[in-house]
Formats: sequence, C-alpha cells, structure tokens
Amino acid sequence: MSNYTFSNGIAPMTGSATRNIFSLLTRPEIISFAGGNPARDCLPTKEIGECTAEVFADDATAKRCLQYGATEGIPELREEIIRLAKDTGIVANGDGSPIAHNNVQILSGGSQGLDLLLKAFCNPGDVVLVEDPTFLGFLATVQSYAAKAIGVKMEDDGFDLADLEDKIKKHQPKLLYVISAFSNPTGKTHSAAKRKAAAELAGRYGVVVAEDDPYGKLRYSGTAVPAMKSFDTADCVVYLSSFSKTISPGMRCGFAIGQADIIRKMAIGKQGTDLHTSNLSMMAIAKYLQKGYFYPNIEKSIPIYRQRKDAMVAALQKYMPEEFQFNNPEGGLFIWGEFIGKGSKINTAEVFPKAIERNVAYIQGSVFYADGSGPNTLRLNFSNESPERIDQGIKALGELFKEEL
Amino acid sequence: MSNYTFSNGIAPMTGSATRNIFSLLTRPEIISFAGGNPARDCLPTKEIGECTAEVFADDATAKRCLQYGATEGIPELREEIIRLAKDTGIVANGDGSPIAHNNVQILSGGSQGLDLLLKAFCNPGDVVLVEDPTFLGFLATVQSYAAKAIGVKMEDDGFDLADLEDKIKKHQPKLLYVISAFSNPTGKTHSAAKRKAAAELAGRYGVVVAEDDPYGKLRYSGTAVPAMKSFDTADCVVYLSSFSKTISPGMRCGFAIGQADIIRKMAIGKQGTDLHTSNLSMMAIAKYLQKGYFYPNIEKSIPIYRQRKDAMVAALQKYMPEEFQFNNPEGGLFIWGEFIGKGSKINTAEVFPKAIERNVAYIQGSVFYADGSGPNTLRLNFSNESPERIDQGIKALGELFKEEL
Repeated sequence: MSNYTFSNGIAPMTGSATRNIFSLLTRPEIISFAGGNPARDCLPTKEIGECTAEVFADDATAKRCLQYGATEGIPELREEIIRLAKDTGIVANGDGSPIAHNNVQILSGGSQGLDLLLKAFCNPGDVVLVEDPTFLGFLATVQSYAAKAIGVKMEDDGFDLADLEDKIKKHQPKLLYVISAFSNPTGKTHSAAKRKAAAELAGRYGVVVAEDDPYGKLRYSGTAVPAMKSFDTADCVVYLSSFSKTISPGMRCGFAIGQADIIRKMAIGKQGTDLHTSNLSMMAIAKYLQKGYFYPNIEKSIPIYRQRKDAMVAALQKYMPEEFQFNNPEGGLFIWGEFIGKGSKINTAEVFPKAIERNVAYIQGSVFYADGSGPNTLRLNFSNESPERIDQGIKALGELFKEEL
Repeated sequence: MSNYTFSNGIAPMTGSATRNIFSLLTRPEIISFAGGNPARDCLPTKEIGECTAEVFADDATAKRCLQYGATEGIPELREEIIRLAKDTGIVANGDGSPIAHNNVQILSGGSQGLDLLLKAFCNPGDVVLVEDPTFLGFLATVQSYAAKAIGVKMEDDGFDLADLEDKIKKHQPKLLYVISAFSNPTGKTHSAAKRKAAAELAGRYGVVVAEDDPYGKLRYSGTAVPAMKSFDTADCVVYLSSFSKTISPGMRCGFAIGQADIIRKMAIGKQGTDLHTSNLSMMAIAKYLQKGYFYPNIEKSIPIYRQRKDAMVAALQKYMPEEFQFNNPEGGLFIWGEFIGKGSKINTAEVFPKAIERNVAYIQGSVFYADGSGPNTLRLNFSNESPERIDQGIKALGELFKEEL
C-alpha cells in the first residue's frame, strides 16, 4: 500500500455521526430518532413522477435534460425560486434592486452551499462563528477546510448579541453560520428583532452570513418570521435553502440567494466539483413548483409532523426522568434535550450502545458543539416514526436513562 | 456592500474558459468547436425516459428514490460499475482481493472525484503533477485549493518517464493527474507500457494517481488499452470515470474505484458537499446498465463521432495553413493543434474574438497548460456539430488564420 498522507483537513475526519449509524438505521426493528429524514408518507412520489414523465414526453426537453447545462442552474427553476423567496421576505438586494437571476445559484442540496461558501471565503486557520450547538455537517465541512469553528452563546430567541459582537471583534471571522428557523439540533428560532440586529452587526463588521433555512416552511404553531436576508441592507447575507425537507432529499436540490459577486464565486467553486446540479432534478422540481404542488404538499405534511412532534413531547413528559429538560419547538424536525441536576453526569455518547441494544437510536448532543462539549445533551428527531413507535421508543429511552441516573 | 475577502484559492479565479463562453455558444449561428458536449443525436432520451418511468412505476421504489440515500451511492449501481470496470481490466486490488463495494464511490460527475481527491490529499502549497497540457477544469480546481500544478513533459504514448521521476523526486507531489485515453485537450492515449511504468513509479514513491477516463469507451480505431489502475499493485491509483460522454452529462453521474481507505475519505468529503448523488440519476442509470443499453448506445454513437472526426481532419487538411500541425486521434472528442514555423507567432487567444465575428468558436490552448504557456495552440471539439457545419467552420477558421500569418 502507498505511503500517502491525507490533507490536514481530511486526515482527522472519520465521517458524520448520523451517516455512520445509517447502516444501523436500516434495521426495521430500530426505532430511529437519529436522522433528519422527512416522513416517508410526505414524499410526493406521484407528483414528482408526473413532472419527470413530462420531461421525457417531449424529445427537445428530454435532450436538454440529458445534455450539459449551465452551472448557475436552469432559468425556469431560478425564476420559481425568486418567486418563492418573496414569501420569506426576500425581495431586494441591499441597493434596492430586485432579486434577479444573477443572485440565485442552484445547489445540489443546501449543504453544498455551505461547502461553496467555505471554499469561497476560508483559508486554513480562518475562523467561522457558529451557533452553539449547530448543524454537525457544517462543523465537519469547516474541519475539511482546516478552518476553525467557534461557538457563540445562544438565547432562546437567537444570538447573545453582546457575545456575537465580542467574538466578531476578537476573531475577525470569515463567516457567521446561522440556522434561522427551527435549528438543527435545537429546534429554536431567531426572532425578527434578533435577525435584524445580527444582520446589522455582520454588515457593520463585514462578516458574510450563511443563513441556512431548510426547515422554515415546516411550522406547526406560531407565526412566520421574515428571513435574516430580508433585513440585509449590507448585502452580506447569503440565504441558503433546500427542497430536501419540503419535496425530496433524494433529488439533491437546493439554492443560494445572495449578492451577485458572491454568487459568482460560488458558481466558480461549483464548476470545480459537480459542474451543475442534475438537470432532471432541476427540471422536475421546476415543474412541481410551476404546477403549484409545493404549498399544498407542505400543508398536507404539517398535520403529520405536528402529530409526531406532539406524540414525542407527550411521551417525553410521561417517560423521561424529571432531570431531562427539553423544548417544544414551533416547527422543524428536532427536539433538543439536556440532563440537568443529578442527571448532568449522564454521558449520552456512552449510553448510546445501550439504547441500540433496546432498539432505539438518537444522536448524542456533543457532536453539535464546536468544542465537542455538551456530553449530557441529545437530539431527537420526530419526523420519521409513527406516533405509536415514538411512544414505544421514548418509553424505552426513559427506562434506560432512569437506570443511568 | 460588505468588505469581505475571498479565500486565497478562489479570489483570483474568474471561471472556466469553456463555461464563460457558454452563453455565446447558445447562439445558433455560432459553429462551436469549443465545448466537449456529446452529440445531441447520441443522447438516449427514449431509454432514460423508460428507466426513469420504471422508478416511479412502483411506489416503494419511488419512495426510496425521493428519500435520503447513502453517501457511497446505491448498491445496484455500484454492482454494475464493478462489472463495467472489468472490461477495462480493473478486477482486483493490489492484494489480489476482488474490487468490492467499498472500493467504489458514486460521484456527481467524474469531475467531483477530482475535487474530492484534492480535498483528501492537498494542503495549500502542495504540488500536484499533471500532463502538460491537461484538462483545464482540473487546473482550476487545483487553484481553488491554493495548491500548485506542475506539468510533466509528454510524449505521443504517455509521460516522459525520466521527467516524471525527476519531478516526483523534486516536488514530492501529493497527486499525479492522468487522462489515460484520448486526453482532453490533446486526444492522445497512454500506451500500456507507459501506463504500467507510471503506475510502478507512483507506487514506488507513494504518489496517489488520479486516473481520469471519461473518454476511453469512445474509440474509433485501434485497440483498447487496459486502465492504468489494472497495473496498480501498490493500490495508489484511483480510477475515475463518468457516464457524461457515454450516457448523459445532464444526469451528473460518475464513479471512483480505488483503495478502500481512500474511497472512505472521498465519501467523507462528499458528505460535506452534496451528501450523495441524486438518487433519480443513480437509479435511472443503474436500470439503463442492467437492461444492457450501455454498449449498444455507444456502438450507435461511434460511427457518428468517427464521421465528424474524419470530417474535421479532412477540413483541417483542406483549409488550414500548412503551418498548422494537428493530430488524428483514435477516439475521444478533441483534436489538438499547434501553429509552427512562421505560424508560431499566432496567439490563439488574441484571434478568438475575430473567430467569433465569423461565427466560429474554439478554445485557446494556453488555458490547458499548468503555466499558461502554449499561446500558439488550440483545442477543437468535433462531437457537437454536423460534418457540413464542421467543414464550414474550419473553412472560416482556415481563412482567418491565413490572414493572421
């Protein structure tokens, strides 16, 4: 075998905690609260099948689908995305000009936008600021660029703004990463006031913000909040979203909306990896949006998700020890929990193998912290199991954690 | 606007030469020898339409398609790829064990494999060795990692092995990049003897080889050569290929075959960008291979490509000045040309706008050199125009270059 050496970024990496237990999760007896999959019942197979068939119904369209396309993505999908973004308050650039095609980059899933922003802005050793805790996939991608993620203190309605400003001054970060609604892993949402304040702070200090919003449309109570990007008068926020939670993750399609020079550098980065997103995914999703299937399918999905979330909240109240503190999010896919008091000695990573023995999976919370802290925390996904299995799985977890106290 | 700073890798990049003239090429009056598109007539729209319809014919399959998948790719496609690789002589790892699923990573196009190998191995400042000239997309991706590409001297049948060994010793490169058959841009092919020798050299010095083979199946004369990977007893060669030239580039699907630890690190890199390749692309292509459509479609395509290549060779002989030297490749999509003698003062980049005025596009050769040399060279693609338009376009180019002498 060759005596090759991996790069400084990749060498220490062993793969995503969620991805590594993926094979476990295919065993049907496992009740999984570990992933972030949309509910199987919410996947619009009939509608996407219809849209896909239309691509091949006409030979000129089919030829266009199978040939190379532009890196930026097909125009009809960018058009639909501009329309969709208005519903989240994103209508104009900082100079007041309307969001146009050159502000939109189609991505092969929203995560690709994080990779492209890191590639565009980060040299090895650079700092990016993140919510603490945050999406573990982003922390991994930061590591692959040999950059450094530093956590900002969080309150229930968004950043601790004093800590954010202190850390911007101290670390001169290249990026600030924010999941503005129903965060993965915490389920928390930044308030409009905090979004506006954070956008202003970032603009003042010249920090580019990656506003990641894959979950915002999945709201089960309360009222929608405009995107942080809608408050962005300095053109420093790049809004990222995805159709993974609202249409299909398997199609790998998302998008970025931002200042045209930044979008251009993201396109240059994309030229060097997958060149463009699958035309078939883009064309099927564009047709799906054009036909008006988007919001009705979300409206059909929301009662299913709300019921599962409520089932998990009820089961947690019923079965978990009183030392377990958890939230009841207004949307998204995740509930975040923490063991307090005499439970704070519980290490959820160490307990995990015992949970698997009892056929239940969750994700240890420490993987979501920039510094690997939070040993007594965990993330629970409620979207991918029936209310009955949620009850059964949380009951098993409750018994296990009571034994661990 | 924010005072952000792009990364050292991305800051100087302005986008691929071919991608930047993409918008020009959509004007129907332009005869384009610039791209690398497969012929429109060779795109199997009917067969891919059929395979796609089958995915949605069964709801369980459709659900699997729309849900998240494994980063490595769907097993049935990896199975087909293992079978396909045998036809190129790739049957075993260095220790003699047969190529297995953990040796195969599905990619969103072959180019993604280059990105993932650079991410896996290169720190800023590291050297990678390339053929001179080579694929400009690779040179751009190297730059995006702030790594440095150094060209190796080439002979008609592959590397100048003395120069290769000298440069390995001198630069201790992390990667050696090779397009083993019908190179982009030169159309040249490495002989079996040179492939074996290069694989042995790389193995001896612990250099990982990226063997890129998107064009190998498009052979119009001569006999097939086993992959460099087939001579790789040191497990240092990663074989990359793509379905872009043999099925469809718009589906964005390719693959890597290599030593399991390297494939694992590529998968970790992929987790941080697009997570997995579009399930719909993978499932449609797996069905296409299972149904035996692959080789018959290539056999139907080859006469079309051969005719176009022959038309271009004939037109170049007829119309170009005698100071223009060019090759007649045995396969692939490209003819490489060089102005010699009193033609050597011709700068193909400077002439390009005049060619566009005459409605003909080519790619200046200098973009394919690691050091930007070769001002008097150019690349001509013959796959995407009819023999009549090839004659007409080369006639216009011949007239133009004769005026420039």
